[in-house]
Amino acid sequence: MSVEKHKLVYFFGEGGTEGDASMRELLGGKGANLAEMTKLGVPVPSGFTITTDVCGYYYENGRQYPEDLKSQVLENIRKLEKDMGMSFGDNKNPLLLSVRSGAAASLPGMMDTVLNLGLNDETVKGLIAKSGHERFVWDSYRRFMQMFSDVAMGVDHHHFEAELELLKSEKNVKNDLDLSAEDMKALVERYKTVYKKLKGEEFPQNPEDQLWKAIEAVCESWNNDRAIAYREMNGIKNLKGTAVNIQAMVFGNMGEDSSTGVCFSRDPSTGENVFYGEYLINAQGEDVVAGIRTPRSMTKEASCAWAANNQVSEEVRLRDFPSLEEVMPEIFKEIVRIKDQLENHYTDMQDMEFTVQQGKLYFLQTRRGKRTAQAAIKIAVDMVNEKLITKEEALLRVEPEDLDHLLHPVFDPNVSKNVLTKGLNASPGAAVGKVVFNAEDALQAKEEGIRTILVRVETSPEDIKGMDACDGILTARGGATSHAAVVARGMGKCCVAGCGDVLIDYKSQTFKVGDKVVKKNDFISLNGSTGEVILGEVPTIEPELSGNFATLMSWADSIRKLKVRANADTPKDSKVARDFGAEGIGLCRTEHMFFEGDRITSVREMILSDTLEGREKALSKLLPMQENDFYNIFKEMIGLPVTIRLLDPPLHEFLPHTESEIRSLSEAMRLPYQVLANKVEALHESNPMLGHRGCRLAITYPEIYDMQVSAIMRAAIRFKKETNEDIIPEIMIPLVGKSEELSILKANATKIIEAELKASNIELSYLIGTMIEVPRAAVTADKIAESAEFFSFGTNDLTQMGCGFSRDDAGSFLKEYVRKDIYGEDPFQSLDQEGVGELMKIAMKKGLSVNKSLKMGICGEHGGEPSSIDFCHRIGLNYVSCSPFRVPIARLALAQAAIRND
Amino acid sequence: MSVEKHKLVYFFGEGGTEGDASMRELLGGKGANLAEMTKLGVPVPSGFTITTDVCGYYYENGRQYPEDLKSQVLENIRKLEKDMGMSFGDNKNPLLLSVRSGAAASLPGMMDTVLNLGLNDETVKGLIAKSGHERFVWDSYRRFMQMFSDVAMGVDHHHFEAELELLKSEKNVKNDLDLSAEDMKALVERYKTVYKKLKGEEFPQNPEDQLWKAIEAVCESWNNDRAIAYREMNGIKNLKGTAVNIQAMVFGNMGEDSSTGVCFSRDPSTGENVFYGEYLINAQGEDVVAGIRTPRSMTKEASCAWAANNQVSEEVRLRDFPSLEEVMPEIFKEIVRIKDQLENHYTDMQDMEFTVQQGKLYFLQTRRGKRTAQAAIKIAVDMVNEKLITKEEALLRVEPEDLDHLLHPVFDPNVSKNVLTKGLNASPGAAVGKVVFNAEDALQAKEEGIRTILVRVETSPEDIKGMDACDGILTARGGATSHAAVVARGMGKCCVAGCGDVLIDYKSQTFKVGDKVVKKNDFISLNGSTGEVILGEVPTIEPELSGNFATLMSWADSIRKLKVRANADTPKDSKVARDFGAEGIGLCRTEHMFFEGDRITSVREMILSDTLEGREKALSKLLPMQENDFYNIFKEMIGLPVTIRLLDPPLHEFLPHTESEIRSLSEAMRLPYQVLANKVEALHESNPMLGHRGCRLAITYPEIYDMQVSAIMRAAIRFKKETNEDIIPEIMIPLVGKSEELSILKANATKIIEAELKASNIELSYLIGTMIEVPRAAVTADKIAESAEFFSFGTNDLTQMGCGFSRDDAGSFLKEYVRKDIYGEDPFQSLDQEGVGELMKIAMKKGLSVNKSLKMGICGEHGGEPSSIDFCHRIGLNYVSCSPFRVPIARLALAQAAIRND
Repeated sequence: MSVEKHKLVYFFGEGGTEGDASMRELLGGKGANLAEMTKLGVPVPSGFTITTDVCGYYYENGRQYPEDLKSQVLENIRKLEKDMGMSFGDNKNPLLLSVRSGAAASLPGMMDTVLNLGLNDETVKGLIAKSGHERFVWDSYRRFMQMFSDVAMGVDHHHFEAELELLKSEKNVKNDLDLSAEDMKALVERYKTVYKKLKGEEFPQNPEDQLWKAIEAVCESWNNDRAIAYREMNGIKNLKGTAVNIQAMVFGNMGEDSSTGVCFSRDPSTGENVFYGEYLINAQGEDVVAGIRTPRSMTKEASCAWAANNQVSEEVRLRDFPSLEEVMPEIFKEIVRIKDQLENHYTDMQDMEFTVQQGKLYFLQTRRGKRTAQAAIKIAVDMVNEKLITKEEALLRVEPEDLDHLLHPVFDPNVSKNVLTKGLNASPGAAVGKVVFNAEDALQAKEEGIRTILVRVETSPEDIKGMDACDGILTARGGATSHAAVVARGMGKCCVAGCGDVLIDYKSQTFKVGDKVVKKNDFISLNGSTGEVILGEVPTIEPELSGNFATLMSWADSIRKLKVRANADTPKDSKVARDFGAEGIGLCRTEHMFFEGDRITSVREMILSDTLEGREKALSKLLPMQENDFYNIFKEMIGLPVTIRLLDPPLHEFLPHTESEIRSLSEAMRLPYQVLANKVEALHESNPMLGHRGCRLAITYPEIYDMQVSAIMRAAIRFKKETNEDIIPEIMIPLVGKSEELSILKANATKIIEAELKASNIELSYLIGTMIEVPRAAVTADKIAESAEFFSFGTNDLTQMGCGFSRDDAGSFLKEYVRKDIYGEDPFQSLDQEGVGELMKIAMKKGLSVNKSLKMGICGEHGGEPSSIDFCHRIGLNYVSCSPFRVPIARLALAQAAIRND
Repeated sequence: MSVEKHKLVYFFGEGGTEGDASMRELLGGKGANLAEMTKLGVPVPSGFTITTDVCGYYYENGRQYPEDLKSQVLENIRKLEKDMGMSFGDNKNPLLLSVRSGAAASLPGMMDTVLNLGLNDETVKGLIAKSGHERFVWDSYRRFMQMFSDVAMGVDHHHFEAELELLKSEKNVKNDLDLSAEDMKALVERYKTVYKKLKGEEFPQNPEDQLWKAIEAVCESWNNDRAIAYREMNGIKNLKGTAVNIQAMVFGNMGEDSSTGVCFSRDPSTGENVFYGEYLINAQGEDVVAGIRTPRSMTKEASCAWAANNQVSEEVRLRDFPSLEEVMPEIFKEIVRIKDQLENHYTDMQDMEFTVQQGKLYFLQTRRGKRTAQAAIKIAVDMVNEKLITKEEALLRVEPEDLDHLLHPVFDPNVSKNVLTKGLNASPGAAVGKVVFNAEDALQAKEEGIRTILVRVETSPEDIKGMDACDGILTARGGATSHAAVVARGMGKCCVAGCGDVLIDYKSQTFKVGDKVVKKNDFISLNGSTGEVILGEVPTIEPELSGNFATLMSWADSIRKLKVRANADTPKDSKVARDFGAEGIGLCRTEHMFFEGDRITSVREMILSDTLEGREKALSKLLPMQENDFYNIFKEMIGLPVTIRLLDPPLHEFLPHTESEIRSLSEAMRLPYQVLANKVEALHESNPMLGHRGCRLAITYPEIYDMQVSAIMRAAIRFKKETNEDIIPEIMIPLVGKSEELSILKANATKIIEAELKASNIELSYLIGTMIEVPRAAVTADKIAESAEFFSFGTNDLTQMGCGFSRDDAGSFLKEYVRKDIYGEDPFQSLDQEGVGELMKIAMKKGLSVNKSLKMGICGEHGGEPSSIDFCHRIGLNYVSCSPFRVPIARLALAQAAIRND
C-alpha cells in the first residue's frame, strides 16, 4: 500500500472539520465521532486524527511512517494552535495534548494513551502562571512523566510509583491528595533522576520529540499482547491498525467549577428511556472509572433514588452527593440538550464522556452504548414507537446471539464466584447441582429431587437419560459440536465442554483441577454462557421474556423469507420449540429414543441376533414404542411438518465398550461374556464417523428402517383417525452418498407405507427425502434428486467429511487454525461458506436442475448460527432447523439476512 | 419393455440367416456366432435363436412370454424342417432338437441344456428305422428323458441314475456300453414308471410341449443360484438374460464314421501358432469334456509328441491313439481349412467344437479362445507380424490386469494344494514361508536365511521392516486398500488380507482356522492372486518376461498420452519401478523412512518433546538420514521427476498402543511409563482418518516439514554437485483442504529452499504442489491453484472423505453394496467415476481456470487400475502413478484408453 500521496491527517475544530462518522474505517471509531460531533456543533476540544492507513503502512514498511506524515502533522498542530489560541511548547501559553488510540472496532483499554503531552520544565512555569493552580500543574507534569516514560520510553511505571510511595512515607501521609505543590515538584526531580538512571539520558524536554514518541507508542500498542489477544477473542480481523487522535487537553480537575462524567442516553441495563450517568467535581476522567471516589448521579431523580436505597438523608445527600442537575444546572441542561441531539442524530443509545473545565463544557467522546440483551430489545422497540428508527433498523440493532442470554437462567451478577476453571461455553444457561459421575447417579438423584451436574470425560448416547435428568453437564473432552454439546443444546441444558483442566477419576468418584479436588456430591455451578466452572452453589435468576421480545420477534417473522424449524427428538423438546416459534421439526433423531426405558434391551437383542428372524423379533418389540414416540410428537406439532430421520448412528454405539461394562451387560442379558465381547469387537471401527451407519445400516439390515417407517405411518394414521387433523410425515434417510442407496430405500419405504395406508383405509400425504451430508451426495445431487422430495443439509457431517475434520479430534489443531486465520472461525460453529458452502451450492444447483420444486433446508448445528443463517438466506434454502432454544435467534437472524441482502 | 411387435426369433441355415456376429447383445455369443458361421458357409446344423429380449421380457412380466413368440417359434420350426428335410414330431422322419442357453457374456456350464428333444414313443420307432442304430436310439431316448425331467420338470436326475445302476447290477455288467438295445428299451419303461410315480402324470409325449418346457427351463436357468453367483463373481452386469438356441441335433456317436472334438486355432497356453485340439471317435461332445475316455490329439505331430512323453510305442499309438489327421484325413483337412477361415475372419484365436455324423462334418460352436496372459501377448504380437491385426488391435487384445500374473512368481499348477481358507487377493504373487507373528521374528529369520510369512491381525507402519523382511503377508482384518495391502503392493510382495477366518492368538503364537491350528514356524503358502492360504510348502515358478512382452509394451508407450510414474519410497522400489518403465516417482512417502533403523527413536523423541527446542533437536538427528534417503532415490531416478510427499500420518502412528508395548518402549527409552502412556492417550483420536495429520501437523509443528524440505534440498544439491545431473524435486504437501494451508506452508518451504540454495551456490529448479484428497480442496481448487504448481489426486483419501467410507471399516458393508449394484465395483479398487470422479473434474476445471499450466496426476491406488486409468485419460490428467509392479499394467491400460477414446 502506498499512502505517501494521500491525506494522512484529518482535522476537527473551528478551523474546519475534515472527517465524519462515516469514516470509521479510516479514522477509527473515536476519531470519526469526534469529527461528527464537531460538525454537529457539539463543544469538542479541537484536534486531529492520524488515519489507520498510517498505522497499516507503519507495520508493512518496517515501522516507517509515510514520508508526508511529518509535514501533515505539523501543519495540523499549527491549525490546532490557532483554534485554541495557545502554542505547542510555548513557555507562556502552552498547548497540552492528549494522544489516544482508536481503531475501527472498539478495543477497550487494550491500547495506549498519553495525556498532558507538551509539559516540560519551561511550559510548566507558563501553565502555572496561566492557570494559577501550582499543585495541579506539578501533579500533571509528574503524571505525564510517569505515563510517557512507561508507554513511550519503556520505563516501567512501578519505578515511579515506588518514588511516590517513598515520598509519602517520608512525609508520613497516606493519600496523594495530601502531598503539596512542593512535594509534587520534588517528585518531578526524583522522577528525572530515576529516568536518567534507567535510560542513561535526560527526560525528553522537546514537546515535538515527545509527540512523535507518543504517536509511535500508540501505533506500537496496536500489536501489544493484550490487543492481539482481545482481537482474537472477539474475532476482530482485517483491520489495518489504529488511528491516533491528537487533541487539545481539557481538565476537569481545575477546581470546583470543573468536573468530569460518563453518561448514557438511556439506561444500558434495562433500556428504559431515562438519562443515566455519573460525574465527579474537580476530577479527571480516570477518577470516575477508577472508583477511588464514589461518583455521583447526573440527575436529581437518580440521586434521590440512590440516597433512598442507601439510607442517606436528604441533608447528607445534598451536602456530599448532590446531582449535577443540582450543582451545575446550566451545564446539566446543556448536556441533556447535547445527549438528545446525539441520540437523535445517531438514532441509537449513546455512551458519552464530558469534561467541564472552569465552567466550560466539552464532550470528549460519544459512541454506541453497550447494553444488555434485554435493554437492546427495549431500546429497539421503543425507538420504533418513537419513530426514531424503522422496524428493519430495530431488527438490525439486536445481536441474535444475545437473545440466548434471555432464554436461559443466569447467575445473579451481584454474587461473587469462586471460579475453578473454564471450558467451552457449549450450551448456555446457568446450572447448579451436586457432582455425579454417571448417568445412573443423575437419574437416582432426580428421583430424590436432588439437582446434579453430570461430570464425564465425554458423553455417549448411553448417557442420554442421565443428561436429561441432570441440571448441567461438564465434560473434559470434546468441542462445541461434541455429543455432549449437541445434545445439551438440543435439550436447552447448560453444558461446559472440553474442559481439559478437569482430570476425572471415575474410580474414586472425584475430579481434580490443579490441586483442587472435587468429590461426588460436592456442589458446583456451571455457567454455560461463559464456560466457567464455579465451586459451590451460585444463586440463579430465571429469565422473563417481556412483551418487547414478542414484538421484536413478530417484526422478524413478518420480514424473514425462510421458515424456522427445530431439531427436536421428544414431545417435550417439540413443545419448547413450538413455544419459541418453530414452524415444524426439521430433524427428529430417532436414535435417542432407542435409549429410553427398556428399549435399549430390545435394541441390543436386535444387534446381537445373527438371523433376520431374531432381528425382526426384537424390532417388533420396538415398533409400538416408536409408534408412541412419533404419535406424541405429532400431537405437539399439529398442523406443522415433522421430518423424522431414520436410524443414523453405528450399531456399536448401543453396546458398551469397556470390559467391565460388557461384563455387567452380559450378566444382565444372561449372555456369555465372550459372545458379547466378540460382537463388540466385530462392530469396532477405526473411523466410526466413516463407518457402517446411516442408510448403510438399512442396506444391510432393511428390517430396521422397515420397522421405523411402519412406526411413523402407524402413528400418523392413528393421529389422523383420532384428531382428523392432517400431519405430513417427512421421512428422511441419512448419509446417502449414492442415488441408488436412496432409490432402494425409498422403494422399501414406499412399499411399507402403502401397505399401512391400505390396511388403515386412510389417505395421508408423506414425503421421502434425504440428508445431504456426504460430499459425494452434494456433487451428484442431480442423480439423488431423481428420488428425493427434499434435501436437508446435514452440515455437521458435511463439514466433517468435506473438510476432513473429525469433530471429536479437531480440537487439537482447529484453535491454531483459527488463530492463524486459516479458517476465519471454527467451521463447526460457523459454516465454512467457501468450502462446505460451495458443496451446498453445487448440490442445490444440481438438485434443482432435476426437480424445480425440491424443498431444501439445513439441520446441522449451523442452522442456529447467525452468519450461517445469513448464508442460508443468500443461497435460497426453504428453511433452517436448529435447537429449540435457538429458534428465536434463527428467526431474528433470518430477518436480518433479509434486510441486509434483499 | 414391449417386444411384442418385435422380431423375437432369428433363423440360421440354408433357408436364410438373419443374424450375425455383431448381434451378440441380442442373440448371445453362441447364437451370434452360429449365424455368422452359417453366413461364412461353415457347415452348421440349421436352427434359430430366441433373443435375449424375450428372456428379459419373461422376467419383467411375471414369467410370461411376448404374445408373438409362439407363432414365431413355430414358423421357424417349419423353416428348420424344410432345411433339414425332416419333420419335428414326425413318426417316420423325426427332427430332433438341441435347446441351449447362450448369453452375451460367457457363463460356462452355469445354465441348462436339453438335447435329443423331440423323441417319444412314436418318433423313436421312426428314428430306428431311419438310422438302423437301435441301441443308439433307445439310449438317446432314455438320456433325453433323464435330462429333460431333471432340467425342465424338476425331477432330480439321481432317481434315473439309480434305475440305471439297478439294471446294471441285475444284468451284472459294469459299464453302460455293456447294456444292449433291449436293456435300454427296458430302461425307458422304468424311467416312465419313475416319472409317473414322482410327478403323478405320464412323461410328456408331445414334442411341442417338450419344446416349450425346454425353452422355459433355459430361461429359468438364467437366474439359478450358480448363474447368479458366477455373474457376481465375474462382475457381469446389465444383461437382460440368455438367448435360447434351438438347433437340429447331429450325432457324433452314430458309429465309427462319426466323431466329435474341441479345438483351438492356436495353443491357448503358450500362444504358439499351432493347431491344438482333441477328439473322440463315436462319441458325443460331453464325452470329450467328461474325461471317461482319453481324448486323442487332432494332429499327427501332437499325437507323436504325446506318445513320446507317455512312452507309448508308435504301434500302440496308431492302434489306440491315432490323430484325426490320420484317421479322417479329409475331414481333418476340412477342419483345418475352416479353423483358418474362422481365425482370419474373427482375427483372433478361436475355440471351436465340431461333430462328424456318419462322415459329414458340422461345426457346433466357435468363440474367442480363452488363453493365459503369456499366450495373449504372444498371439497379439504374432498376429501383428502376420498382418492379421494392427498394433492398436493387438494392444486391446491383452487384459492389462492379466500382466500382473507375468510379473510375480506363481505356484506350480501341477501340484495339488491343501487350501486352508481364502482371503482377499490383496497383492499378487506366490509366497512360501514359516509362520511368524511379529516383525522382529521376520527380521531375525531373514538374517538366518529363513523365508517367513508374517501373520498379523492387521499391520501398522511399525511393521514395515518386518513386512520388508518376510516373503508374504497374511492379515485377518483390512480390505484391498488396508495398510498391509497398500504396502505389500508397493513392495511387489504377496499379500492375502482381511482373512476373517483366521483367528490369531499372539500369546500362544498360533492361529486357528476352524479347528485347524497353525503354529509359529509351520510352513504355509499364500497365493496373492487368488487369496488362497495353503498349508505346507507349494513349489513356485519364477516368471520370465519374454521379448513379446517388451514389444507390446513399446507399442503401448508409443500410443499412450499420459506418463506413468511409480509410488516408490525406497531406492530399491525406485529401481524396480524404473525397470518396469516408470517415468518418475509420483509419490514418495516419507513416513515409511521414519521406521527404518534407529530413526524411530528420534521420531519418538520428537513427538514426546513438549518444547520447540526439544523437537528441533530430535529432528536434527533425522535430517542427515532423510537427506541420504532422498539422495539414494534421486540416484535411481536420474533425469526423471521425483515427487516427495511430506509427512502425512498422525503422530500416534509412531507410538505403541497396547499397554505392554508402551511399557517396553518406556523401558527402552528410560521414560516413566505414565509419561509415555499420557502422550499416547493425548494423541488418541476417535477418527484418525479425519484427525491431526498431513499438513495440519506442519501448521502446528512447522519444524517437521522444515527439516524434510531441508533434507530434500540438501540431497538434490549434493546430487547435482556430484553428478552434474539435474533433478527436479517436486515437494508435495498432503491433506490440504484450504488454500491458506498451502500458501503458509509453501512460504515456509520456499524460505528454507532459497536458504539452502544460497548456501550451496547451486541453481536448481523445484516445484511445490499439493495433493487433492480432501473434498473441500476439490471444490475450492481455484483458490488452491493460486499457490500450487501441481495437483496430485490422492484418490484413496478422496474416496474415503468424498464417499464417507473408512477403508479400514467399509469391508463390513461394501461387499453388500457391490452385490446390490449400488456401487458397480468397490470404489477403493476401481475409481468411483460418478462421484469421486466428479470431484476430480470440478478440481481440474477450477484449477486450470487459474493456472493453465498446472500439472495434474493421480497417486492413489487407482492409478494402477485399468478402468480408473481410462477415466484419467479421458479427463486429461498428465500422469498416473502406481505401485512399481503395476507400472506395466498402467502403460498398457493407458494405451488402450488412447485407442478407445481418441
